[in-house]
Amino acid sequence: MITALAGGVGAARMLRGLAEVMPPGDITAVVNTGDDTVLHGLHISPDLDTVMYTLAGAINAETGWGLAGESWRVMESLERLGGITWFNLGDKDLATHCYRTQRLNEGATLSEVTAELASSWGVDVRLLPVTDDPLRTRMQLVDGPEVSFQEYFVHLHHEVAVASVRFEGSASTQPGPRVLEALSGSDVIVVCPSNPVVSIDPLLAVPGVLDSLLARRDDIVGVSPIVAGAALKGPADRLLAELGFEPSVVGVAKWYAPWMGTLVIDQADSALQHAVEAVGIRCMVTNTVMSTLELSADLARTVLHATR
Amino acid sequence: MITALAGGVGAARMLRGLAEVMPPGDITAVVNTGDDTVLHGLHISPDLDTVMYTLAGAINAETGWGLAGESWRVMESLERLGGITWFNLGDKDLATHCYRTQRLNEGATLSEVTAELASSWGVDVRLLPVTDDPLRTRMQLVDGPEVSFQEYFVHLHHEVAVASVRFEGSASTQPGPRVLEALSGSDVIVVCPSNPVVSIDPLLAVPGVLDSLLARRDDIVGVSPIVAGAALKGPADRLLAELGFEPSVVGVAKWYAPWMGTLVIDQADSALQHAVEAVGIRCMVTNTVMSTLELSADLARTVLHATR
Repeated sequence: MITALAGGVGAARMLRGLAEVMPPGDITAVVNTGDDTVLHGLHISPDLDTVMYTLAGAINAETGWGLAGESWRVMESLERLGGITWFNLGDKDLATHCYRTQRLNEGATLSEVTAELASSWGVDVRLLPVTDDPLRTRMQLVDGPEVSFQEYFVHLHHEVAVASVRFEGSASTQPGPRVLEALSGSDVIVVCPSNPVVSIDPLLAVPGVLDSLLARRDDIVGVSPIVAGAALKGPADRLLAELGFEPSVVGVAKWYAPWMGTLVIDQADSALQHAVEAVGIRCMVTNTVMSTLELSADLARTVLHATR
Repeated sequence: MITALAGGVGAARMLRGLAEVMPPGDITAVVNTGDDTVLHGLHISPDLDTVMYTLAGAINAETGWGLAGESWRVMESLERLGGITWFNLGDKDLATHCYRTQRLNEGATLSEVTAELASSWGVDVRLLPVTDDPLRTRMQLVDGPEVSFQEYFVHLHHEVAVASVRFEGSASTQPGPRVLEALSGSDVIVVCPSNPVVSIDPLLAVPGVLDSLLARRDDIVGVSPIVAGAALKGPADRLLAELGFEPSVVGVAKWYAPWMGTLVIDQADSALQHAVEAVGIRCMVTNTVMSTLELSADLARTVLHATR
């Protein structure tokens, strides 16, 4: 049994690789919900959906988000009405949000709805929202107001400097059902190559999660989302730098060292292996760029043996 | 200046006829919101939309509701997810509900959102929701629970007997901005051929509306939605009978007589003209079946002169 801490695109690829090399039913993913937003009255869970669509083999491989073969009828009409269209929602994707919102309004928990959706999509990996309670990542801009994560990430194209990040509501959240069990009961905890600041940190903001991780430090292996000083996707490099960490595998190591035993870095960063180890974290070097399913599976095999 | 009391399909055709024979900007429609519902988290206003789409020339002429040239991508996907699909929402139509819900969540009133949508659709008739406050038509079934209007009308295909109807929340509602002004300040008040029980009655349940109508009785002209003992569309005939009224123009006359001065009935019911007048209401006979725009315009001309 393994448990993965997951954000969006990078996590989805890691999980797909893991599901290739071990029974999907033995994998639990604890997924970030700090990116969740309500738009047009619809509850949108971008990371849960990216992971679910990817594991279902339905993801749009070009963009890394949304569904393959998607159409945009609703958005085209919404644009004519002068509605909000910077958060692009495909027609098939909208059905997911309609389903989720209706079930939440009926009183279902996000965990329950996620299990229902995953079942509909034929996903056997167990997807657990880190919490069923409202958790909202908020970004304080250097030259501007505090904005929601999606405002920062999608609307502003993460092209603005961030002064600080907080996870609104986190103190009032409880871990979702089975989240702490998954962390304490799994053989290995894999930290997917997600953004440390805005994908993994929100998980730690949920009371109980960090303590569970600290108790498992030797069994925790992470994959660096930074390769050769840059994020493969998204603003992880910029955010680390803006928050005072080096935008490198060493910065990632420093961010994670308190609770992570092993960090897997890319061959492109092999020269930094000793600098990583100097932070006090084991370091393993391999190919981490999951551009194909085969490479995802190779990385998954390495990661699963990294702590042994 | 004229004001029309409006439900859905019949009202939309009447309003389109009126807009043919007088300046659309001189027409105000006070529209039922008792049919409004929240589904998938989206605020849906079926009567406002039917009127708006019809006046925009965009209605699906075959069904009388929804948009012409509609696609159903979201619903098809929602069906695969096991979501609620008995309330069929087209992709283009969904954009309207997304826009409305987002604006309401931002704090706009339903009146404001309606004006914005009407402007986008190029509709010059002034569309006023009867109230900006929650008003929900509820149907107590003879052999079953109390259900929402849409549950009765769409899900149960109005094939079940109704014991009583109430308008939940009505006591707490206020008329929308300019609704009472429109009723007091117009030359003629036209009651469209809508369902008396579930389209026009909810308007009267909003405090202040009935008093305004009682003060204008001589200037109020209605068109019977019942022709030859049957509703042209929907369950008006059944509902009248279930609530103890004859399912005929005489039953309609009795329903409306307290506050309506003139009732226009179809030629098919000419033999009942005296029976209508015996109720204490003026009666005019003409062709009321608006199967073409020309016939709608003809009826509009007749109605506008009916009170003079």
